[in-house]
Amino acid sequence: MIIVGIDPGIAIVGYGIIEKKGNKLKAIKYGAITTEPDISLPYRLKIVYDELTKILIEYKPDAFAIEELFFNKNVKTAITIGQARGVEILAAVNCGIDIYEYTPLQVKQGVVGYGRAQKKQVQEIVKLLLNLKEIPKPDDVADALAVAICHAHSGRFKELFKIR
Amino acid sequence: MIIVGIDPGIAIVGYGIIEKKGNKLKAIKYGAITTEPDISLPYRLKIVYDELTKILIEYKPDAFAIEELFFNKNVKTAITIGQARGVEILAAVNCGIDIYEYTPLQVKQGVVGYGRAQKKQVQEIVKLLLNLKEIPKPDDVADALAVAICHAHSGRFKELFKIR
Repeated sequence: MIIVGIDPGIAIVGYGIIEKKGNKLKAIKYGAITTEPDISLPYRLKIVYDELTKILIEYKPDAFAIEELFFNKNVKTAITIGQARGVEILAAVNCGIDIYEYTPLQVKQGVVGYGRAQKKQVQEIVKLLLNLKEIPKPDDVADALAVAICHAHSGRFKELFKIR
Repeated sequence: MIIVGIDPGIAIVGYGIIEKKGNKLKAIKYGAITTEPDISLPYRLKIVYDELTKILIEYKPDAFAIEELFFNKNVKTAITIGQARGVEILAAVNCGIDIYEYTPLQVKQGVVGYGRAQKKQVQEIVKLLLNLKEIPKPDDVADALAVAICHAHSGRFKELFKIR
């Protein structure tokens, strides 16, 4: 099973594609789609949508796992990132891929087994589980791989996280 | 010039298409794209994107004017509506239409000439300016027409509101 994990954003969209064979996980491809702040919002959304669609067509994941947005108070940021997350989900549904979402807490639990794990611990475990030489940079890429791993680990409970 | 005004949303997306000839405004087509809450978010986004794209292809507006989101505190709602607004803007950019955005205050000022006008007053003026027999329902449709009228009235200042 091929899984793509997404750390949603507009300036940086982290993506991590992994393969799950039995209990083994392998990183296939990971990176970030980036858009410059001096480009207009519509074109940033278009870049994100087009680039992500290209990746989904190339790697044909069976599952698309995306982190839920969590903002305490900054409504303006929430709207901006929400707009980007909308086109990211649209790319997946237009490619016919099953979509799952996980909260940041669930991602930590799914990767480390402990919801209050520190970011650095999560990243180290991502590196170990995928046999990477280094922690992928920027953080958004490591986060995206963590979301993919979380989905790989959700096993028979994963239907609970499906957006239907 | 053909202008489409959009009142962004996920359950109800109001749209209003008007024609501006000199100082005269005419309603061409208005209505709402609706999605049921029991459908999954990805498919609701897809419905909104597909339906809006269909409308844009059919009526070929020269300008796409969309209201800015304004939320005081409900971050969860801001994210949800933000996601929908993202795909609404994507539909416009993918159709190659110039995109403008106006705050609720600017819409009132643009239609009534007074930023603190009441909703009902704005709706009455929309009805008068477009020679409609009744105020379009639901409110989202009247709001969308107001956004289109606001853009029509922005005249030589409209470049200020272009998202670039």
